[in-house]
Amino acid sequence: MTAQPVLSVGFVGLGVMGAPMAGHLVAAGHQVTGYDLHAEARNRLAEAGGRAAESVAEAVAGAQVVITMLPADPHVEQVVFGEGGVLDSAKPGTLLVDMSTVRPETSQKVATAAAERGVQALDAPVSGGEAGARQAALSIMVGGDEADFARAKPLFDVLGKTIVHVGPSGAGQVVKAANQLVVGGIYALVSEAIVLLEASGVDAKAGLDVLAGGLAANRVLDLKRESMVARQFQPGFRIDLHHKDMGIVLAAARQAEVALPMGGFVAQLVQAARSMGFGSLDHSALLKVVERFSGRDPHDEQTANSHA
Amino acid sequence: MTAQPVLSVGFVGLGVMGAPMAGHLVAAGHQVTGYDLHAEARNRLAEAGGRAAESVAEAVAGAQVVITMLPADPHVEQVVFGEGGVLDSAKPGTLLVDMSTVRPETSQKVATAAAERGVQALDAPVSGGEAGARQAALSIMVGGDEADFARAKPLFDVLGKTIVHVGPSGAGQVVKAANQLVVGGIYALVSEAIVLLEASGVDAKAGLDVLAGGLAANRVLDLKRESMVARQFQPGFRIDLHHKDMGIVLAAARQAEVALPMGGFVAQLVQAARSMGFGSLDHSALLKVVERFSGRDPHDEQTANSHA
Amino acid sequence: MTAQPVLSVGFVGLGVMGAPMAGHLVAAGHQVTGYDLHAEARNRLAEAGGRAAESVAEAVAGAQVVITMLPADPHVEQVVFGEGGVLDSAKPGTLLVDMSTVRPETSQKVATAAAERGVQALDAPVSGGEAGARQAALSIMVGGDEADFARAKPLFDVLGKTIVHVGPSGAGQVVKAANQLVVGGIYALVSEAIVLLEASGVDAKAGLDVLAGGLAANRVLDLKRESMVARQFQPGFRIDLHHKDMGIVLAAARQAEVALPMGGFVAQLVQAARSMGFGSLDHSALLKVVERFSGRDPHDEQTANSHA
Amino acid sequence: MTAQPVLSVGFVGLGVMGAPMAGHLVAAGHQVTGYDLHAEARNRLAEAGGRAAESVAEAVAGAQVVITMLPADPHVEQVVFGEGGVLDSAKPGTLLVDMSTVRPETSQKVATAAAERGVQALDAPVSGGEAGARQAALSIMVGGDEADFARAKPLFDVLGKTIVHVGPSGAGQVVKAANQLVVGGIYALVSEAIVLLEASGVDAKAGLDVLAGGLAANRVLDLKRESMVARQFQPGFRIDLHHKDMGIVLAAARQAEVALPMGGFVAQLVQAARSMGFGSLDHSALLKVVERFSGRDPHDEQTANSHA
Repeated sequence: MTAQPVLSVGFVGLGVMGAPMAGHLVAAGHQVTGYDLHAEARNRLAEAGGRAAESVAEAVAGAQVVITMLPADPHVEQVVFGEGGVLDSAKPGTLLVDMSTVRPETSQKVATAAAERGVQALDAPVSGGEAGARQAALSIMVGGDEADFARAKPLFDVLGKTIVHVGPSGAGQVVKAANQLVVGGIYALVSEAIVLLEASGVDAKAGLDVLAGGLAANRVLDLKRESMVARQFQPGFRIDLHHKDMGIVLAAARQAEVALPMGGFVAQLVQAARSMGFGSLDHSALLKVVERFSGRDPHDEQTANSHA
Repeated sequence: MTAQPVLSVGFVGLGVMGAPMAGHLVAAGHQVTGYDLHAEARNRLAEAGGRAAESVAEAVAGAQVVITMLPADPHVEQVVFGEGGVLDSAKPGTLLVDMSTVRPETSQKVATAAAERGVQALDAPVSGGEAGARQAALSIMVGGDEADFARAKPLFDVLGKTIVHVGPSGAGQVVKAANQLVVGGIYALVSEAIVLLEASGVDAKAGLDVLAGGLAANRVLDLKRESMVARQFQPGFRIDLHHKDMGIVLAAARQAEVALPMGGFVAQLVQAARSMGFGSLDHSALLKVVERFSGRDPHDEQTANSHA
Repeated sequence: MTAQPVLSVGFVGLGVMGAPMAGHLVAAGHQVTGYDLHAEARNRLAEAGGRAAESVAEAVAGAQVVITMLPADPHVEQVVFGEGGVLDSAKPGTLLVDMSTVRPETSQKVATAAAERGVQALDAPVSGGEAGARQAALSIMVGGDEADFARAKPLFDVLGKTIVHVGPSGAGQVVKAANQLVVGGIYALVSEAIVLLEASGVDAKAGLDVLAGGLAANRVLDLKRESMVARQFQPGFRIDLHHKDMGIVLAAARQAEVALPMGGFVAQLVQAARSMGFGSLDHSALLKVVERFSGRDPHDEQTANSHA
Repeated sequence: MTAQPVLSVGFVGLGVMGAPMAGHLVAAGHQVTGYDLHAEARNRLAEAGGRAAESVAEAVAGAQVVITMLPADPHVEQVVFGEGGVLDSAKPGTLLVDMSTVRPETSQKVATAAAERGVQALDAPVSGGEAGARQAALSIMVGGDEADFARAKPLFDVLGKTIVHVGPSGAGQVVKAANQLVVGGIYALVSEAIVLLEASGVDAKAGLDVLAGGLAANRVLDLKRESMVARQFQPGFRIDLHHKDMGIVLAAARQAEVALPMGGFVAQLVQAARSMGFGSLDHSALLKVVERFSGRDPHDEQTANSHA
């Protein structure tokens, strides 16, 4: 294994995902200058051996690679396009790696605007959640040019385990969207299976064990069937975040001009979960929506009484 | 390991599933008397070392255990309740094991009527398909009394690998229904993922590889993603059979008085596949429905032209 | 207007629909012999000037036309095919008019079996509910031969206002199914409109008034928008009955080999209403399901509290 | 009837809707200065007795009321917020009436920004289409302050027949969204009814006549059932426009935090219609999607052949 070059990295967004990621880059020997709206987050990076910047511009100024890890499309647009933002501050030749989960069209807009300034851009959303970020075990789905991917690869290797270049600009976001569609849908299906089993007087645990041994097997069943049957919904990955992601799924489908009826319905289920007040529970709490909709809500005493 | 007792088994229904199952029982040393409407099927059993009966009554007459493996509810009702059928012919104390996939209420009706004649009954539908039957690797989901399950267990051990007693009469059918709901739904979700990826200009194979490495992982992705992307739909398990099974899912939900919106929609997708003429393709051909509905049908030239 | 011939009519099923219908036929001068399981119902017919029979056979024996008005498929099968039933008792040349709402295939089975005995059969389900039956203002959708329709027409004219021969045997049931599909779907759509308006802080009454004046106009809006906004759900037509009818819609679609995704989902909504305990409310109570699913349930205090 | 005051009106957007609307205002005696990107459209207004402006700023400069009638959200944002746009040019006290169909949050953003400049704003989307615009028979749904509504009322009276103030800023858009949800859904339901009738061998025309006489009655049935059964889909209101509107429905639901499963599915059906290449057909062409999905496509010979 050859020694990796030390890179100067500007890192914008030091939240629950960004903070451990920036920390891993520091630990790997890279020169990381980070910025976050919260001073506390900036201080933690400094304590970890990075450098705290007082503005996006300062974080970006001398960087070879700028990584952004932000909550949603408006934040990315503000940080990239805003006054004093990345494109105002980055010198030509900088590589901008947006690891936020946003709409494919936002990634494409960023890439196009960046190119006009001589800046290269990749979209590189991740899956694996907070645990994946802390353990440097993220899956990273990358859209953009092959050469830019190669340039960012040493950094990705520090942050994740599954790292795939899936296509041109925006492609990373599309794969992430497909992932969230399938994950959300499987939660809904497993929820309907649980509701059907329980309503039929069948032991759900025993029934799901059989499912997990055949063609219905899936990772959600492996990891979550016990907690779902027990109605334990501590996150994990919150409904609110999956709600945001389903918005991206629908936007991606609209942009690609395809109808996704299952996706459309899963988006409504996740919206329902949020509307019912379950936004801060784990996304496995889709079971609560399916249960309420199915007319069964045995674990919610107040509602059960209201049926009487 | 103690020697298993030799049982006299009446086996009704020697089709693509029943034939290899009866063969395994013969090979394991049991005395199997089989009946099927087709003489050819009866002859094959005789060649394999079993005994061919000329009627259901003859197959059932001296049996300790009667196994039925039939296409659908009407066949089970005919064979069990019809003149000269199982209940007309079985002596008290016989154990009737229906391994067909039917509605839970059919299984319960069989069990109730059997009890009135002093016959015990189990519902024991299987998953794993023809390959599972040939390789004696079926999953067997059993509903009925514990003692009856214990009595049939030596036979199940010959036929399958995952053998679970999941609850009272009908429970086996409910678990099978839950399984088919989840399997059908995952096919639809993976199909929508493929359509979204391809319509967005992303390499579907690379994208699905990422999905298969994270929380979206499932056995359908493992086994079928390559053939689906290549549009190869040789069965496997035919759409027509999955259509029958989705009818059972909806009937089970109706009996249990629960709403299953995902299940309801998956049933329509499978119906659509059948209506479009794909009934004899593998159930992964749900992709063709999703593709046609999404407005993309790149592999069906005639339709593509009709858009022009 | 020429004098109508007096017909001898056997009438089986004197419930909330059948009783007033039989009464109208008596009042129009026909000789009506009625049977119902409940003695009280039979007595009421006698008081109204009809004749009470002690069995189906007695009601059918001398009749030129037999009308059946029964709750569901199993009752029709029992009354028509059962021992001492219509086909056992009717003399050749009798016209059997089944005005029950059942599956098209049940109507076709009745017609086929009747023909084997020299009995002609029509399926003639109605819409308009109890009010329509009492006011002799039913819509009657008739399947069967043109000549048989002509023969029954004088009786239909006594019972209804819109009387249409829509096709061969079973066609009446298909049209009734299509009607219930559209009615159920419109209730769901209007419910979603109400939920969207209210959740957005818009006066639902004013908003629906606009809808009722344009292309969205429909009879449900005309008749029910005020009671729905006020959450008044006295029947009218009960959810339990619409649930039965949606089962017929799905069975009709399955028989015709067509996928009906909207119909499939409406069936789940109606099932949900029933599962939630709203079975005896008016079908406009679909609003309660949509509201609960949408995460808004302002009129159900206990549930509202459970969100807190 | 008292004489209405003559108002000076700036009118931006003189397309198929705006042109006849501006013409009606001119004919009613108002002083209309209009702007459109296309010179031809400006010239037609001048020929009709209005005044053609060379820019938004010029149209807005001296106006008491500014009306905008634009295709979609980005156009409204550009015309209102852009350099030289309405808010740059309007003097305090101007009333801005946006009659475009856009997201409720866009209307609210416009109203908020306008208020900061001392400009009042109403959202006043319409239904009734080109025919309604030409015949001055639009339905106008108005959101905003009561006093501002009163001020604009004389202009609305010139343009429409049903004019309702439905609530605060954005409320007009929400009612328009609810309208399009119900209209789209009814088209889908009527389509499924047609498909079920035809697939069952029932004369669709006769069947729909019955539906149109009962609780299923609706204006779509009244106006479109003959053309739908005949597969005539000349617009009318184009699928592409309904697709845009379903996007607004979903955005409005998301903003209001409600789940709308029927709405979500109708949006996918409309997307499918567009993806299949039917974007420029009338929205009654949803029937083509339902037909294709149902597996029946008798009027599309090429697809029919491809099933063979």
